[in-house]
Amino acid sequence: MAKVETMQTDLYRIPLQQTLTDSMHGVMLDFELITVRVTDSDGAVGLGYTYTVNHGGAAVAVMIDRYLAPLLQGQDADRIESLWQQMWWALHYAGRGGHVTSAISAIDIALWDLKGKKAQQPLWRLFGGFDPKVPVYAGGIDLQLPIEDLLAQADGYQEHGFRAIKMKVGRPQLREDVARVARMREHLGEDFPLMVDANMKWSVDESIRAAHALADFNLVWIEEPTIPDDFAGYARIVREGRQPIAGGENLHTLYEFQQAITAGAITFPEPDVSNCGGYTTFRKVSALAEAHNLPVTSHGVHDLTVHALAAAPNRTYMEAHGFGLDAYLAAPLRIEDGFAVAPELPGHGVELDFASLEGVRA
Amino acid sequence: MAKVETMQTDLYRIPLQQTLTDSMHGVMLDFELITVRVTDSDGAVGLGYTYTVNHGGAAVAVMIDRYLAPLLQGQDADRIESLWQQMWWALHYAGRGGHVTSAISAIDIALWDLKGKKAQQPLWRLFGGFDPKVPVYAGGIDLQLPIEDLLAQADGYQEHGFRAIKMKVGRPQLREDVARVARMREHLGEDFPLMVDANMKWSVDESIRAAHALADFNLVWIEEPTIPDDFAGYARIVREGRQPIAGGENLHTLYEFQQAITAGAITFPEPDVSNCGGYTTFRKVSALAEAHNLPVTSHGVHDLTVHALAAAPNRTYMEAHGFGLDAYLAAPLRIEDGFAVAPELPGHGVELDFASLEGVRA
Ligand SMILES: [Mg+2]
Ligand SMILES: [Mg+2]
Repeated sequence: MAKVETMQTDLYRIPLQQTLTDSMHGVMLDFELITVRVTDSDGAVGLGYTYTVNHGGAAVAVMIDRYLAPLLQGQDADRIESLWQQMWWALHYAGRGGHVTSAISAIDIALWDLKGKKAQQPLWRLFGGFDPKVPVYAGGIDLQLPIEDLLAQADGYQEHGFRAIKMKVGRPQLREDVARVARMREHLGEDFPLMVDANMKWSVDESIRAAHALADFNLVWIEEPTIPDDFAGYARIVREGRQPIAGGENLHTLYEFQQAITAGAITFPEPDVSNCGGYTTFRKVSALAEAHNLPVTSHGVHDLTVHALAAAPNRTYMEAHGFGLDAYLAAPLRIEDGFAVAPELPGHGVELDFASLEGVRA
Repeated sequence: MAKVETMQTDLYRIPLQQTLTDSMHGVMLDFELITVRVTDSDGAVGLGYTYTVNHGGAAVAVMIDRYLAPLLQGQDADRIESLWQQMWWALHYAGRGGHVTSAISAIDIALWDLKGKKAQQPLWRLFGGFDPKVPVYAGGIDLQLPIEDLLAQADGYQEHGFRAIKMKVGRPQLREDVARVARMREHLGEDFPLMVDANMKWSVDESIRAAHALADFNLVWIEEPTIPDDFAGYARIVREGRQPIAGGENLHTLYEFQQAITAGAITFPEPDVSNCGGYTTFRKVSALAEAHNLPVTSHGVHDLTVHALAAAPNRTYMEAHGFGLDAYLAAPLRIEDGFAVAPELPGHGVELDFASLEGVRA
């Protein structure tokens, strides 16, 4: 039995090469990266990480360092489900989601990486091995890009191998969104998979109005039309808007996904493996979606996510999300003709260049 | 206009004079106290605080120090609703509840204290001034107390002026709970207000069974029979158990209270002003409960809570919760013949002995 021996946590501030914009977070210049390296009593190391949109990362690091690492130290590293429950309950009071789940996610990912490395198996195989090729889309964060730049960006995505694209909506006037989506649809052709993401901008009524205004553009989905707390509102949007609705990057527990799905609030659940509870929770959300005859998509950290979706028979498009991390990766994820390919390396196979990261320590 | 000038955050570990026990947290020897002192540009100071059950407090302190204090610095200290929204959205990604809400709560309480002090008004008057006398109960945390000690503790509560008592349930066998409640009921007399609290111990089916097993004891409510994430399960417990159900200490957003109340999941909403979002959110939960023909009760930090309940026409029993803080208070809350009396001091009127707290800095 290999025990959890040490846990090293580090906090970085990753600059973005290109300024990102959406309807809710405004202009994003960088993001916080929190890494965890778990070493077991055999000397094997597992890597996990999570991130935030500018704020809160130092609190996640403190949760790991001060509360969760001492809790796990000396325990059987293989019993991830048990360790997960202990972490959940240790920080349950005042927790029950929020940044606790990001802290647990980073550790959970590291523990799974460790398990995969010791089993000499890539995680997507360890998880059940559905298909290493996962359909992928380019998640543009481009609300304020002028239309010509938006179309040029779409061309660039296609040159990189993407065959599906998401663009931001939620401009001050709905007619602006409609005009931008119309231009994009015309540019891409009528069958090219296109999604839009409103980042919680609208009221429920505005969302329904927008869904109808965008009805002619053959969208794969409309993402996060309103705040994630309003499942009843989402259910109205699904029924009355008559468009597929995606959401989940801001849901942080299995229970929230269950409530959303049971309420008919989302038709494309999109957990983020780095803030929903790690691989452990992501895979349960996948199963929950499958049980409800729904696909599962994703948000963020595609280098990690690809293993979870490559194991899920109901997987649909994975989001590829350019959070500037590629500059610090030994091998960025391969995108080939619309698919990401889960690597055959043991664990998740992601290697961060910690020497370079020293330059952006926060 | 007075601006937020400085914000001082401190973290303490308060030892408990008496070991506390409940069904979920086991044995509690101490708790973390996080204090915030906001000084405005006139030199006036507002005090806020929150706490945790042993874990997570350092993360709350980091959220305030590193992210929220710089955000508020220089802004109009009076515009609490605006500051609240800014705090919520700054930490929304990966947040949306959890420890973020505790951090916001501590600051919100400090800002309201500041507002009250500058207006030379106690908060309960500033909030609307329903009645300074608030019915109160002693919240025993006593699952593992032998029955004779439990009854002696009840006598002590009555000597201190309490005319309502809550005891813990959730022993390994339901028959033990029934026997303990029966002894307590016999000891107190048939009309003495008695509540029980299971701290999330049971499944939904077990909760319904327990509700029926406890039906003859004239309980004011059964608290937190199961995990707070399962509103549909709670609604079954309310309907099929046919007992009043309290819950809310583990709900951390106004939206969660709305969902719980709309689902018929709780009949005694009990927000904790130090983890639900401060006075700002507590008062909205009170109004939400009133709009649904429900009373509002409370959890924890009674010295602060008394102002919110003294302003609410639908207030019922406030929990008095012996978290060991009395030793550090200039003037512990007065309990008189079953009522707590909101003080006439400006703000919330709570003064902590920071010199003594130095001895328990964490
Ligand atoms: Mg999104
Ligand atoms: Mg309780």
